[in-house]
Amino acid sequence: MTMQVGVGLLGAGTVGGALIHRLIFESEAVAAKTGLELVVKGVAVRDKDKDRGIDIPAHLLTDRPFEVVDNPDVGIVVEVMGGLDPAGELVKRALESGKAVVTANKELMAARGRELLEVAEAAGVSLLFEAAVGGGIPIIRPLSESLAGERITSVVGIVNGTTNYILTRMVEEGAPYEEVLAEAQRLGYAEADPVADVGGGDAASKAAILASLAFGTWVDGDRVFREGIEDLRLVDIDFARRLGYTPKLLAIAEDSEEGIAVRVHPALVPLDHPLASVRGATNAVFVSGPSIGELLFTGPGAGGEPTATALLGDVIMSARERLAGTQVRSRIRFASGCLRDPAGVTAKWFLRLTVADRPGVLARIAAVFGRHQVSIKSVWQEGRGDVATLLLVTHESPEQNLSASVAGLSALDVVSEVATVLRVHSDEP
Amino acid sequence: MTMQVGVGLLGAGTVGGALIHRLIFESEAVAAKTGLELVVKGVAVRDKDKDRGIDIPAHLLTDRPFEVVDNPDVGIVVEVMGGLDPAGELVKRALESGKAVVTANKELMAARGRELLEVAEAAGVSLLFEAAVGGGIPIIRPLSESLAGERITSVVGIVNGTTNYILTRMVEEGAPYEEVLAEAQRLGYAEADPVADVGGGDAASKAAILASLAFGTWVDGDRVFREGIEDLRLVDIDFARRLGYTPKLLAIAEDSEEGIAVRVHPALVPLDHPLASVRGATNAVFVSGPSIGELLFTGPGAGGEPTATALLGDVIMSARERLAGTQVRSRIRFASGCLRDPAGVTAKWFLRLTVADRPGVLARIAAVFGRHQVSIKSVWQEGRGDVATLLLVTHESPEQNLSASVAGLSALDVVSEVATVLRVHSDEP
Repeated sequence: MTMQVGVGLLGAGTVGGALIHRLIFESEAVAAKTGLELVVKGVAVRDKDKDRGIDIPAHLLTDRPFEVVDNPDVGIVVEVMGGLDPAGELVKRALESGKAVVTANKELMAARGRELLEVAEAAGVSLLFEAAVGGGIPIIRPLSESLAGERITSVVGIVNGTTNYILTRMVEEGAPYEEVLAEAQRLGYAEADPVADVGGGDAASKAAILASLAFGTWVDGDRVFREGIEDLRLVDIDFARRLGYTPKLLAIAEDSEEGIAVRVHPALVPLDHPLASVRGATNAVFVSGPSIGELLFTGPGAGGEPTATALLGDVIMSARERLAGTQVRSRIRFASGCLRDPAGVTAKWFLRLTVADRPGVLARIAAVFGRHQVSIKSVWQEGRGDVATLLLVTHESPEQNLSASVAGLSALDVVSEVATVLRVHSDEP
Repeated sequence: MTMQVGVGLLGAGTVGGALIHRLIFESEAVAAKTGLELVVKGVAVRDKDKDRGIDIPAHLLTDRPFEVVDNPDVGIVVEVMGGLDPAGELVKRALESGKAVVTANKELMAARGRELLEVAEAAGVSLLFEAAVGGGIPIIRPLSESLAGERITSVVGIVNGTTNYILTRMVEEGAPYEEVLAEAQRLGYAEADPVADVGGGDAASKAAILASLAFGTWVDGDRVFREGIEDLRLVDIDFARRLGYTPKLLAIAEDSEEGIAVRVHPALVPLDHPLASVRGATNAVFVSGPSIGELLFTGPGAGGEPTATALLGDVIMSARERLAGTQVRSRIRFASGCLRDPAGVTAKWFLRLTVADRPGVLARIAAVFGRHQVSIKSVWQEGRGDVATLLLVTHESPEQNLSASVAGLSALDVVSEVATVLRVHSDEP
C-alpha cells in the first residue's frame, strides 16, 4: 500500500531543482523503497519564466511563496530558497499551521534555529535540517540521535566546499587566491558574491549548528568567531608545505571545563593528518567523545544531487511521522550557555616575520615571546642578506598572549614586518 | 521536566556492563541532555554471583531473563546477551508485549531481523539495532533514514575489528597468524572460540544487515558468501606488500543490474586506498550511490564503551517515541530478492604459483588463463633455480572462470602448486 503526502517547495535553484527532479521523475523508486507517494503540490520561485533545465509543470509554479505554505494539500514544506528573509517567516508560518518543514538553510538555522525548533515542538510537527550541514553527509541525525547518549567533547571539520576547493587548487597548482576564486565563480563552485564562503560565514553557521546539537547548548551563528581565507598568500602556503603543513579552513567546536568555544579559521594542518588529504568540495567532520573516541564522517559537502539526497531523507522521515500522526524528532533540549572569549582560547601559532639579518635578532624576538608566556617550538630562517624571513611555530598559547607578542614584535626595530599569523591544527598537546 | 522510562537489560557482559554503568552512574548527564530519566529496572545474567567490576544493585539482578521481559515497569528491553537462542524468543516476546527493543545482536538481526521487524511493526513498537554494526559508528540510522531517498549501489567496508586487529599486526610486525590470534585472545580482543570472527561469520551478519537496509531487499545472513582469514600466510602478505597491496577482510554488498551480491572475504587493497590505512579495531564503511557519490564512516568498531554509546542513542530514541505514544522507525519496507550466484561475481585475482623455472612455462600458464577468458594484468617471477615463484594479478573476471583456470593450472606438469588465490580490491575497472 502506498500512502500519499503532499510536498511544497520554496525555491527551485540547484538544490531545489535536483530534489524536484527526484520527486517528480523518480517517484517510483522512492515509493518502492519507502511505501510513500510524495507528490509535489507547489513550487515557489522568484521568476516563473526562468529556464531551470527541468520540466516543472506550469500549474505547480507560483511566485507567491505563502501560497505554497498555505496550500492545504501541502503536508511538508521544503525550504531551499536560502537567506533569513522571507525564509524565516515562511518556515515559521508553515510550522504554526501544522506542516512539517525540511530545510537546507544553515544561515536560518544558525540564526533562528532554537526559536523555530520550539515553534515546531509547540505545533507538534518536525523541523528537519540534515541538508544544512555537510551536504550529502549524514551528520545532523547521527549527532542529535545516534550520539544522544555521548558527552561529545569536540567537533572538528572541513564544512565549506568552496573554500576547500580554492585552497586545494592553490596548494596543488600554486595558483594565487584571486585567480582560483575567479575560476571557481566561472565554474559555479563559488557565488558571484563569495563573501559568505571565503569570509567563513557559511562555515560559522554550520559550526554553530553542529555545536548546538553536539553540546546541547544553543550557539547562535553570529557568536561564532570567524576568520576567512582571503588573506592567505601563496608564499605562506609554500613555506607551510616545506614545514609539513597544508592550509585548511576549519570549523572547531569544543566543550571543556572552561566552557564552549566555537570558531572558524584557516589553520595549518600537518600533512599526515586525515584532514590534510580532504580535497576539493569534499567535507569531513571528526566527532570526539570519551566513549566513542573519534568518529569521522566524509563525503560530498555540497552540490545539488548530494544535498537533494539529504533533503529527501528528511522528507521521507517527515512523511512517515505524519502518517504515524506524531513527531518525535524536534525534541532536542538546549541549555543556554556562554561561549568562551576567543581571546582565551589556545592554539599553536605559525608566524612569518621579516627581520634584520644580524646577530642577536633572535634573542630579542624570543624575549618578546617569553615576556608574554608564549613558548617557541621551532624556528627557521629563510634567506640571507640585509633582511631575512623568520618562520616560527609556537606551543599552545592563548590568542591574547599571541596578540600581545605580535604587538611587541612589531615595535622592535629589528622586525620590519609581522607578515603572517596563522593557527596550527594538531592533535598533539 | 524529566520523564521516566524503565529499562531492562538482557546480559551484562562488556557491552551490557558499560551501558549499565552509564544508565546508573551517569544518569544526570543523560537527563540534562535529553530530559529523560532512564531507570534500570532489571538485569538478566547467567550467573548472579559473578564479579562484573561494576556495582549493580543486587535486587536488579536475575538469572531468569523472561522476568525482565515480562516486568511491567520495563518499557525498553536492551538485548546484549548475543546468540540466537534464547535471545530471539526474548526479543520477540518483548516486542509482542508492547516493549521497545534495542539490540546489539548482529547474528540475531541477520538471521531473524525481517521477522522481528514485522513483529515490532505489528505491535506498534520499535526494534532498533544501531549497535549491531560498526560499534560506535552511526551507520544503521544514516542508511535507513538519512539515505532513505538514495538508490544505494554499494556498501563496502571493514566491519570486524578482531580480524582487522590481527591483520594489522601480521602486516606491521610480520607476526604469524597463530601467534597474533593467541595474543588477541589473551588480551580479550578475540573470543576463546574465534571462529565467528576469523571465519567471516560476524562480518557476514553485518554485511547482510547493511545490504538489507541499503537495498531494501532482505538478505539473510546465512546466504552471504564468506571466506575467513585463517589461511592468510605471511609469505603472501609480504609478496602483496611489495606489489603495493595490504590484506583486509572486506564486507561487500553491491546492487547492480545483475542483482544483489553480498560477500565477505579477504582482499588485497592498494596501499593508497583509504581502507588500507584503517588500523586495529577501527571500522570503516563506504556507502556509494548515484547522487551522494561516496560517503565514508570511520570509527571504533567494537569495544564496550563505543557500543554502549550506540545502544544508549537507541534507548533515548525509543524512550522519546514511547513518550510521544508512537513509533515510526521500524517501518522499513523489504522486498524479497535473489542473491546473485557468487560464481558469477567478478573480481581481480592475485595468485601465487610454484612453477618449474624453464622457458615456455609462462606461455603454457597464460594459455590456461586465456582458455577460460581470464585476462592477466601483470606477472612477476620471484627466485630462480629449479623452481620459481610466480605472482599474477588478473583483470576482472568471474569467480567461476578463475576456478576453472586454477583447475587447469593444477593439472599442468610445470605447475607444482597453486599456493594462493586472493581477491584484489580496487575502485578501478
